[in-house]
Amino acid sequence: MESLSVKERLYSIIFGTETQAGRRFDLFLIVLIALSILVAMLDSVESIASQYHRHFFLLEWFFTLLFTLEYAVRLYCSPKPGSYARSFFGIVDLLAILPSYLALIFSGSTFLVIIRLLRVLRIFRILKLMRYLRDANVLWRSMMSSRRKIFVFFCSVLVLATIFGSLMYVVEGPEQGFTSIPKSIYWAIVTITTVGYGDITPHTIMGQMLAALVMVTGYSIIAVPTGIITAELADELRRDRSKKYCANCTRSGHDNDAEHCKFCGAELNP
Amino acid sequence: MESLSVKERLYSIIFGTETQAGRRFDLFLIVLIALSILVAMLDSVESIASQYHRHFFLLEWFFTLLFTLEYAVRLYCSPKPGSYARSFFGIVDLLAILPSYLALIFSGSTFLVIIRLLRVLRIFRILKLMRYLRDANVLWRSMMSSRRKIFVFFCSVLVLATIFGSLMYVVEGPEQGFTSIPKSIYWAIVTITTVGYGDITPHTIMGQMLAALVMVTGYSIIAVPTGIITAELADELRRDRSKKYCANCTRSGHDNDAEHCKFCGAELNP
Amino acid sequence: MESLSVKERLYSIIFGTETQAGRRFDLFLIVLIALSILVAMLDSVESIASQYHRHFFLLEWFFTLLFTLEYAVRLYCSPKPGSYARSFFGIVDLLAILPSYLALIFSGSTFLVIIRLLRVLRIFRILKLMRYLRDANVLWRSMMSSRRKIFVFFCSVLVLATIFGSLMYVVEGPEQGFTSIPKSIYWAIVTITTVGYGDITPHTIMGQMLAALVMVTGYSIIAVPTGIITAELADELRRDRSKKYCANCTRSGHDNDAEHCKFCGAELNP
Amino acid sequence: MESLSVKERLYSIIFGTETQAGRRFDLFLIVLIALSILVAMLDSVESIASQYHRHFFLLEWFFTLLFTLEYAVRLYCSPKPGSYARSFFGIVDLLAILPSYLALIFSGSTFLVIIRLLRVLRIFRILKLMRYLRDANVLWRSMMSSRRKIFVFFCSVLVLATIFGSLMYVVEGPEQGFTSIPKSIYWAIVTITTVGYGDITPHTIMGQMLAALVMVTGYSIIAVPTGIITAELADELRRDRSKKYCANCTRSGHDNDAEHCKFCGAELNP
Repeated sequence: MESLSVKERLYSIIFGTETQAGRRFDLFLIVLIALSILVAMLDSVESIASQYHRHFFLLEWFFTLLFTLEYAVRLYCSPKPGSYARSFFGIVDLLAILPSYLALIFSGSTFLVIIRLLRVLRIFRILKLMRYLRDANVLWRSMMSSRRKIFVFFCSVLVLATIFGSLMYVVEGPEQGFTSIPKSIYWAIVTITTVGYGDITPHTIMGQMLAALVMVTGYSIIAVPTGIITAELADELRRDRSKKYCANCTRSGHDNDAEHCKFCGAELNP
Repeated sequence: MESLSVKERLYSIIFGTETQAGRRFDLFLIVLIALSILVAMLDSVESIASQYHRHFFLLEWFFTLLFTLEYAVRLYCSPKPGSYARSFFGIVDLLAILPSYLALIFSGSTFLVIIRLLRVLRIFRILKLMRYLRDANVLWRSMMSSRRKIFVFFCSVLVLATIFGSLMYVVEGPEQGFTSIPKSIYWAIVTITTVGYGDITPHTIMGQMLAALVMVTGYSIIAVPTGIITAELADELRRDRSKKYCANCTRSGHDNDAEHCKFCGAELNP
Repeated sequence: MESLSVKERLYSIIFGTETQAGRRFDLFLIVLIALSILVAMLDSVESIASQYHRHFFLLEWFFTLLFTLEYAVRLYCSPKPGSYARSFFGIVDLLAILPSYLALIFSGSTFLVIIRLLRVLRIFRILKLMRYLRDANVLWRSMMSSRRKIFVFFCSVLVLATIFGSLMYVVEGPEQGFTSIPKSIYWAIVTITTVGYGDITPHTIMGQMLAALVMVTGYSIIAVPTGIITAELADELRRDRSKKYCANCTRSGHDNDAEHCKFCGAELNP
Repeated sequence: MESLSVKERLYSIIFGTETQAGRRFDLFLIVLIALSILVAMLDSVESIASQYHRHFFLLEWFFTLLFTLEYAVRLYCSPKPGSYARSFFGIVDLLAILPSYLALIFSGSTFLVIIRLLRVLRIFRILKLMRYLRDANVLWRSMMSSRRKIFVFFCSVLVLATIFGSLMYVVEGPEQGFTSIPKSIYWAIVTITTVGYGDITPHTIMGQMLAALVMVTGYSIIAVPTGIITAELADELRRDRSKKYCANCTRSGHDNDAEHCKFCGAELNP
């Protein structure tokens, strides 16, 4: 370990997860992100913010400085700082600190909306947590390999929602809350996805019959993305199994918990 | 390319997707359809329509004339104009331009409902986009091969909704909003499909117990269409993946372990 | 055909679906049932019933007499009238005519609730349609073979709903609409099944956090019945395939649309 | 049977399910638990409790004493009382009687909330029923083997809900009911899980478009847990069905085509 330079050691701690120091750093960062998000959330609750505003302000700057330090060190110890800065997590790390500095610049001004937006953008620090969900390889790969089918599916849903929404606009009309086609399409999406807020509901008999048809359609087509992902996932799992093969008889298809080949009984190497 | 007649060249551009010109034409048409639907939508929003009504009127005629031209050219360059006109997309293409012309005829009259209906019908231009979702072959075939089971399933759902709705009409009665059996069936469909608007809800203890039963039933039977489509889709995917096709009868869809064509019995080459 | 007795011929028409007369009889009955249910439904709509009450009354007796005739003929031509009368459809056929006659007896009385109940019971004629959904064998068998697992699943859902409902009763209290434990359990079921009427909703922060937990739980466990039925259905479909076997090489596992054996190429007999 | 001591005989009745006495005891206990839960529920309904409070009080003590007796006998006849007391069901059995005794201690005080909490805690007796759902082995194992994937999935859902909720807080603002980020996240969870109470709904066009996106996302990702559990369950069922077990190490769960034990490598006999 002593043969490594400071830069390499920092790299293994900050980017790696193999050493104990690296795992501790990751855990510390997760806690820090969670706390900073909690502060940003509580800061948006009027009754709490008015009382503890000073504490939140100080904590917020404490987190921002720490994340700035982390960003700087990551840039420093990365072998290719440019490619890190342009990567997904490089941009997320930058976005996690930018809003606080921008709020400083705009604080003298009266653009209240911009400040509210900037304070909310701090929430996006939660994306920093995504780094730790990354090993969800099977899930991600099966969603990626079915993305084309899911895209076709959603276009169909949008086409259906547009048609049903427009029909509902004619059937129910502006008197019953269906004031425009975009609003009726919003209603159709609320209904097809079985969310069903109930802020806009059909009141005429014709409208209720059409709504029933929309519901049953939505209820039916929800099966399609499920079917796609299930079929892909089952495939992915099967392929995962087939990667484990026996060195003795060269046959694959062993369970994840298998220690011996199920065909010849020879021991399997991990 | 130069050996082709104008008609054939037009055909390959308008109907085909192999040439670059064909793909550009398709892309141009998609943008055009999207814009025309956007105009029809915005035209239904009172606050926007009152301000820009003149612009929308002109744009609408611009789109209608372009789509009319497209329809005419499709009819002209199609080898069998009659069968194109009677095909699904031929009818959709006609329906996309018809409402605008009909609105012209009825514009002098006071039949407001007809005009509203005609203006909304323009939305159905969205069906023209379906042409580009067509390659969703696996999805479509698996839905088709399970259509009989899904039909049986929906009849069962309707029977259940009728029975539960009628029971609810007796239990809750008109005082609680269940004013008639059709309305109670509408409530039952809203509940079984887990949409749950909340415009009609049970208020008595008996009614809430029955409603809980309806919900749990709906929650359970949603699994059935999902199961059907998943099972069919997995089958379809499996067959799709084995790219085997019969050299004798040119049909595909054979299992991985198939050695002979399942349609003509000829031997399959790997 | 002429060698059959009247009784046997009636039996093949009324109970069978092989002859054209049998199929025509079934179709006629389906239309009759649909019409009688439509009349019962419309009869419950105040505004329509007050106007056409006399027509509905006559139609209702017309249907009742026809169904009585059908029931009598079924009893007459059935080889074992007793076992028909005690079968599921025998009881349904009786229940389809009983309410009308009972309403006659109680009509003089003032028991309005009984009459309303009897009028609604006519809706159960819809169960007569179940006869025609019967060939949904795969669906039914896969539901039957997983009924034990589904029962365990629903007990777990009820246990969860009881626990979450009781916790919510403590957290939110009667002031926010959670007036008793049964009502809170009703809320929990509405939420777990993702119906979400919105007639009772949490208002405190603690309550909303607990509600979010209930929702995510419900959202997660909906996967369980789906998984059960899908796995069973896939099995059922596979077993269906394996029933088709080749007379030449005795191997099974052919697709439903297979005409030749995929292993030896010999023709398959249906 | 007479060679068994009283302690052993009690053990076989109370803990076992093989003897008829054991099954009768279990059935008696199930009825008792159901009744005690019913009493606790009815006790929370104001209108019923005020009338029958005395009866409920006596019944409650009757149940508590019986459950105390059961707990004492279980402790007595268990071969290892300590490990029973620390097991899941030992703790549940203790919790089933504790609230009643605690309520006795606090009854003189005015801590109304504690008493209400204690009265509600009695509901947790329902967990005693879990003992009888235990044979749901396949369900439980398939949920356990996919718990890592489901955990990753729920973290993703929480991240999504946080992001969408924060965006909605900016877009709609406190004027439309989105008063703080935590409340907006609550709304996002209500929407993603397709529950859709409708207590908070978007009113601006931008908000409704964002809400539509949230719904479609929720509608799509519901497929992921379903897919995970289905794929795992199908695997579990397949392995369950092949009743193969290893004569050498006595472990089961082998594939149909396994010839050697996957754990110890010994040959499997069909």
